[in-house]
Amino acid sequence: MHSDQAARRVRPPQPHAALSSGTFGNEERSVRNPTLTEALVDKVLDIRYDAIPAAAVELSKKIALDGLAVMHAGATEPLGVGRLTTAYVRASGGAPQASVVAGGFKTSMQNAAYANGTMAHALDFDNTSYPPNHPTSPTLPAILAIAEHHRLSGRKIIEAIVAAYEVQGRLRWAATGLRTGTGFHKPSTVGMFGAVTAAARMLDLDRQRTLMAFGIAGSRAGSLSINTGTMTKSSHSGHGARMGVEAALLAQMGWTASPDVFGPKGFFDTFMPGDSKPERLIEGFASPLWMLDPGVGFKAYPSNGFTQRPISGAIELHDAYGLSAEKIDRVQVIFPRFEYVNRPQPRSGLDGKFSIQYTTLVALLDGEVGVDSFTDERRFAPDVVELLPKVELQFDDAIPFDKLTMHVVVHVWLKDGRQLTKRIDRLPGWPGQAGVELTAEQRHGKFYSCTRRVLDHEAARRMLELVERLETLPDVVEIMDIARCDAKE
Amino acid sequence: MHSDQAARRVRPPQPHAALSSGTFGNEERSVRNPTLTEALVDKVLDIRYDAIPAAAVELSKKIALDGLAVMHAGATEPLGVGRLTTAYVRASGGAPQASVVAGGFKTSMQNAAYANGTMAHALDFDNTSYPPNHPTSPTLPAILAIAEHHRLSGRKIIEAIVAAYEVQGRLRWAATGLRTGTGFHKPSTVGMFGAVTAAARMLDLDRQRTLMAFGIAGSRAGSLSINTGTMTKSSHSGHGARMGVEAALLAQMGWTASPDVFGPKGFFDTFMPGDSKPERLIEGFASPLWMLDPGVGFKAYPSNGFTQRPISGAIELHDAYGLSAEKIDRVQVIFPRFEYVNRPQPRSGLDGKFSIQYTTLVALLDGEVGVDSFTDERRFAPDVVELLPKVELQFDDAIPFDKLTMHVVVHVWLKDGRQLTKRIDRLPGWPGQAGVELTAEQRHGKFYSCTRRVLDHEAARRMLELVERLETLPDVVEIMDIARCDAKE
Repeated sequence: MHSDQAARRVRPPQPHAALSSGTFGNEERSVRNPTLTEALVDKVLDIRYDAIPAAAVELSKKIALDGLAVMHAGATEPLGVGRLTTAYVRASGGAPQASVVAGGFKTSMQNAAYANGTMAHALDFDNTSYPPNHPTSPTLPAILAIAEHHRLSGRKIIEAIVAAYEVQGRLRWAATGLRTGTGFHKPSTVGMFGAVTAAARMLDLDRQRTLMAFGIAGSRAGSLSINTGTMTKSSHSGHGARMGVEAALLAQMGWTASPDVFGPKGFFDTFMPGDSKPERLIEGFASPLWMLDPGVGFKAYPSNGFTQRPISGAIELHDAYGLSAEKIDRVQVIFPRFEYVNRPQPRSGLDGKFSIQYTTLVALLDGEVGVDSFTDERRFAPDVVELLPKVELQFDDAIPFDKLTMHVVVHVWLKDGRQLTKRIDRLPGWPGQAGVELTAEQRHGKFYSCTRRVLDHEAARRMLELVERLETLPDVVEIMDIARCDAKE
Repeated sequence: MHSDQAARRVRPPQPHAALSSGTFGNEERSVRNPTLTEALVDKVLDIRYDAIPAAAVELSKKIALDGLAVMHAGATEPLGVGRLTTAYVRASGGAPQASVVAGGFKTSMQNAAYANGTMAHALDFDNTSYPPNHPTSPTLPAILAIAEHHRLSGRKIIEAIVAAYEVQGRLRWAATGLRTGTGFHKPSTVGMFGAVTAAARMLDLDRQRTLMAFGIAGSRAGSLSINTGTMTKSSHSGHGARMGVEAALLAQMGWTASPDVFGPKGFFDTFMPGDSKPERLIEGFASPLWMLDPGVGFKAYPSNGFTQRPISGAIELHDAYGLSAEKIDRVQVIFPRFEYVNRPQPRSGLDGKFSIQYTTLVALLDGEVGVDSFTDERRFAPDVVELLPKVELQFDDAIPFDKLTMHVVVHVWLKDGRQLTKRIDRLPGWPGQAGVELTAEQRHGKFYSCTRRVLDHEAARRMLELVERLETLPDVVEIMDIARCDAKE
């Protein structure tokens, strides 16, 4: 699908309408073609709720529901990501503008975006897009913080989600030099530009101020993939969300920046010199919406996106053969070459989220993979310690390393001599031919499972009901009041 | 001097003492050699006030005085950098921990570090180090914010300044892939690691938590040089200071990160793949202190470091020949090749700080270069508009592009037919053979000039007196009380 996508989307560059305004500073205000960043901003500002397809409205509500779910789950992440993050923003203080999920208090929009974004990514249970990115954890918290403070409507939120997804999808596709699993991490680079897109739309910034906001965001982007497997990775989403809000707020006040952050010597040339296709930012923009094609995946399991296939296959094997530690002799997973997920001995439960060996084994042993699968207690339980050295990850260079078209094979040798094999082609949680979409029941089940540690069932049910008619809400104050969990104080 | 420096400093890598503790997470705690980051952190934690040479104590106080001076000047930067930054952090709110210079209020340590760091860099009047970097604006605001909140002593502050300078100098020297004037900007990359070094020392973090703090800082580093000439460049220092504080505070709480941010796949490999010399971080660490050799430059003029030579030469010509707009026919500046400062028509007064053409012309016309030289009013005054097209910047590839060993020639042709020529070898404000150090009178004059818009003379005099005996102060509360300028509210 990657090459199909590429073929379909690469179109000859189109000439842009000449514009008679919008140049920067004291340059002559002459008629000229827009820069790439100007062309992008014009398209971002053209997105209007009334023109958004119904499928995208529905998808945006699923995104909001799944995003709220994983924020709540992250608040009680077992290693303390949520607890520490909440304590951190509480200590720094802030104007009571926006709610910290499960925190019992409000703080500045920036702090709330940071805390909620970090919690949303804490379990690696937040949704994914293609090419690989986490598009919700850096953006939805920014959107909700601004919406809560300024009492903005559900339709405004949907507009912002659609715009943020479009920019992130295209930027991720243009940023060919950003690799998966190494170098700069996506939520604080691509995701931050999604956040600033959303924040600019929520604040109704004009063209010039939106250009400035993008320029400011370029000077906040960053984050290292080497921090994967530690708490800091979660904070990349929080940082992206927070700095997206900051960039838009500063631009709103009149703060200046480069008006062409995606032009020469800008974001691409600095972050990935010589390895980008900037024109992809605008080619075919929103036609169709990136969120609809190639689509959005919702995770079935709270671990890295590439672990979803082997986990689902392992669970099927567990259920079909009643597997347990006593029965398993050894395991082999056939996988495309991707060193990032080759973690034969993850150093913590959290690190285990990025380990094919660990996630496959736990799925085989337990028949399910949830939040509790990634505690240090589970990671260092006797059955895992004993069997983990017997799980082999075998790279097969004949399998393309592409999230949507790849496949995985799980082999299990039992002590009774049998060999079990399961090949998994379709990605759990992904729409269309490449995946197996979550059913409404599964999505709701995930929501209740994620929120149950902090919300009672009635509160969760009410939140779900509100989010599922988001486009009718004049504001999200009730949703955020529930999410804040004042009673927990 | 560059090659001399390199020759002197490059030493064969030394074996490090094996250590019996300090490994990360659940790895086996075996005896092994320290990683590069561990070796660096050990050296950072070894810096003790009692072992700091007297010259470095004196220099640290000059750094603190110059840093406070430029924060005050930045608070009234003519385009509004200080005004907008102060309004921004005021609106976001924060626990009243640390003072915003000239703001009349306290906010969180992070917000204060952001505001004061941004103001410190607002005029490009903050000091510089070698290789080119602004070592004070991203670090001193972090140090002062923590010192104020936790009532820490002047000696502690001096320790932190020395440590921050040492790490920044070596990191800048190791980061061969960071160019001057393009790509990633230094105050939010190198400077941020200076800030986290200082913050870790101020908070007395232990070895493990300091390692974590460095890892977190790696995921906050960034910023684009394309934003030079806009307000966003100033914020790179504020962002560096703020995120240094954040990284240390998070680490103090137990937040985790990669324990080897300077190791493989870390900061160097991500920000400058294949173009770094990481071992320079620890070779000859603090022997001598980097702040003493190659030293620290204090700017005589509030503009880019590379404009200091032509400005000083132009002022000499102005004074010697009584130059004025009526007398000047055309101007030529001979300069090493450096496109960054080739700005024949700066788009604003602020942008003019990075223009050899503009700064040289204003110095020739006015006989002085100060804060008012970079207003839009001066930039677009008739004499500048008329003569700027007649100022030619001529690159001479025979002149080495090296801040300390380069020279500049200014030619002026007068309407009466005379040709004036001035060659400038030594860098104004730089110590030793490569420069012309500021006298105490000049430093004090700069301090009073920078503070006069917000502090009355008696308050400024008191602050100067306190800073000049910083090592005797039990805390800096009085200094920050003066700096906050409550009376301005």
